[in-house]
Amino acid sequence: MTDVNTLGEFGLIDHLTQQFPIVQPSTKTGVGDDAAVIDNNGFWTVVSTDMLVEGIHFDLAYTPLRHLGYKAVVVNLSDIYAMNAQPRQITVSVAISSKYTVEAMEELYAGIRTACEVYGVDLVGGDTTSSPKGMTISVTAIGQGEKDRLSYRNGARVGDLICITGNLGAAYLGLQLLEREKRIWLEHPDVQPNLEEQQYIVGRHLKPEARRDIIEEFRKADLRPTSMIDISDGLASEIFHICKQSGVGALIEESGVPIHPDAQMMALQFKLDPITCALNGGEDYELLFTIDPKDTDKVRFLPDIYIAGEILEADEGIKLNSKGGKLHELKAQGWKHF
Amino acid sequence: MTDVNTLGEFGLIDHLTQQFPIVQPSTKTGVGDDAAVIDNNGFWTVVSTDMLVEGIHFDLAYTPLRHLGYKAVVVNLSDIYAMNAQPRQITVSVAISSKYTVEAMEELYAGIRTACEVYGVDLVGGDTTSSPKGMTISVTAIGQGEKDRLSYRNGARVGDLICITGNLGAAYLGLQLLEREKRIWLEHPDVQPNLEEQQYIVGRHLKPEARRDIIEEFRKADLRPTSMIDISDGLASEIFHICKQSGVGALIEESGVPIHPDAQMMALQFKLDPITCALNGGEDYELLFTIDPKDTDKVRFLPDIYIAGEILEADEGIKLNSKGGKLHELKAQGWKHF
Repeated sequence: MTDVNTLGEFGLIDHLTQQFPIVQPSTKTGVGDDAAVIDNNGFWTVVSTDMLVEGIHFDLAYTPLRHLGYKAVVVNLSDIYAMNAQPRQITVSVAISSKYTVEAMEELYAGIRTACEVYGVDLVGGDTTSSPKGMTISVTAIGQGEKDRLSYRNGARVGDLICITGNLGAAYLGLQLLEREKRIWLEHPDVQPNLEEQQYIVGRHLKPEARRDIIEEFRKADLRPTSMIDISDGLASEIFHICKQSGVGALIEESGVPIHPDAQMMALQFKLDPITCALNGGEDYELLFTIDPKDTDKVRFLPDIYIAGEILEADEGIKLNSKGGKLHELKAQGWKHF
Repeated sequence: MTDVNTLGEFGLIDHLTQQFPIVQPSTKTGVGDDAAVIDNNGFWTVVSTDMLVEGIHFDLAYTPLRHLGYKAVVVNLSDIYAMNAQPRQITVSVAISSKYTVEAMEELYAGIRTACEVYGVDLVGGDTTSSPKGMTISVTAIGQGEKDRLSYRNGARVGDLICITGNLGAAYLGLQLLEREKRIWLEHPDVQPNLEEQQYIVGRHLKPEARRDIIEEFRKADLRPTSMIDISDGLASEIFHICKQSGVGALIEESGVPIHPDAQMMALQFKLDPITCALNGGEDYELLFTIDPKDTDKVRFLPDIYIAGEILEADEGIKLNSKGGKLHELKAQGWKHF
């Protein structure tokens, strides 16, 4: 018998799904991208799904249910935007143990509803059911895209520029802070945690946003990224996916990786290297994409987009050029939930 | 604080989703039917999702993982067929605790794969993640239908005939038998349960099929049911949904409700009334539909379809005419998982 840990999260799903053939003519992309792509006579349907499990993906000791509902939706919408498509509908299924009250569920759904309003998507289906223990939330997002404008993970070409939106690592450091304050509170219940000064990084963890604005900028600038992925498991893991599926290598410049000053400060407090948090921390929900060098000027003047490297030949591997000028081999770590 | 039990399964999801507006022009039907309906320029996309939780929806003491994987897919496909549409793709997310081995997951996915092969659908996405305890499976099915051929729950009209496919109650009795044998086995581990003679009802519970064949017959016969729903929670619950959403009442003839001889026998062994099992037992995954009386001849000669009643005015309520000639008020019981 083989422990599921031996394969890791990506390994396990790859292993389990590798023998599934594609038989439907309408299936354009199956397992292996941010979302599946289905041809509906011209308009293409993009479908993404995610499952969040209490005690694994969220801790209700410091996660308000309203934020949790919001985040559960946003992380799925992020996958749709990462295809350069527009989310239109979601389904939400929730399993809860009997310890949850109707009021608690109302809070959760209030957050789901706010996300629907903010991003203009419709809740069209789902399920609530009971669970022997804890809460599990499964969200499926359905979007539309134009056939010739979708961005996949496999389109990066040698010479393409690597771009990152927003900033990385803050959500991870927000989580570290919340975990630390929880430990302190458990030991000293009279000490009230003061998170006021760290609203930015805590907010990045508890209430992330998906980059709809960037997709809108692409449309206005008539720019189609050659490849794109959302950064849910850390930059190292995501560039690894792009390189593997595109059959290329990559060079990332440490100086090009955007990190928020509050994340910088908190990393130092935790005696962590900020770039390590940016590379291996998760849940930023920013976009990592590549562009043809001829589109450089289109990107250069767009807000909140940073050029962080270049696509290389596959045999050059995936490397980080540190601020000190040293080349490091990057390894995909991702989240290890098992 | 309000216990979730006070609202029941249907009550809770209705309560939580009632305030969600529909804003996308492509959303044709949201929460409240077997599946959501999305307009994709002519071809309509139909989406259904379901969550199965260990200890609530399945018991691994007597459920082979391969059957579980198969069933998890089939119950979602059944929702797509119940819209008179064709399933094309599925996504599957699974949360498992570390007690599950890779081999166990391979069994589960072998069942999922068999269902994909049998029904001609593609697995296009999903997720495996860990859970602190037990297994949760969430499946979303995506189908295509023609705008003018979809069947909703709200289309039944006074005078329509009520039809049922296959037979009802057997899956419930299969479950009762498995539960009884489990209790015996727990008390007397040396007694090996003999389920050989009850393969039919046990199979109906462990490995149900969705009625693709019926949808195919409808197409050949150029028949569009005026309303349709799949029977997952028992006939009483499903006719209640149709009547509520169509604004009508119904009369069901007990003599018209198909029950398999093996289910009849097992009901008597358990000192249960077979019609009660058919009305309130769940998980048959047969179809309940209504037809315009002018289509009676189209249905009369189709295999495995039974005319079981008639749609009445709303103020006549929902009634069962027993074999003894008495009229009983029907109440939707459904599954109470909370």
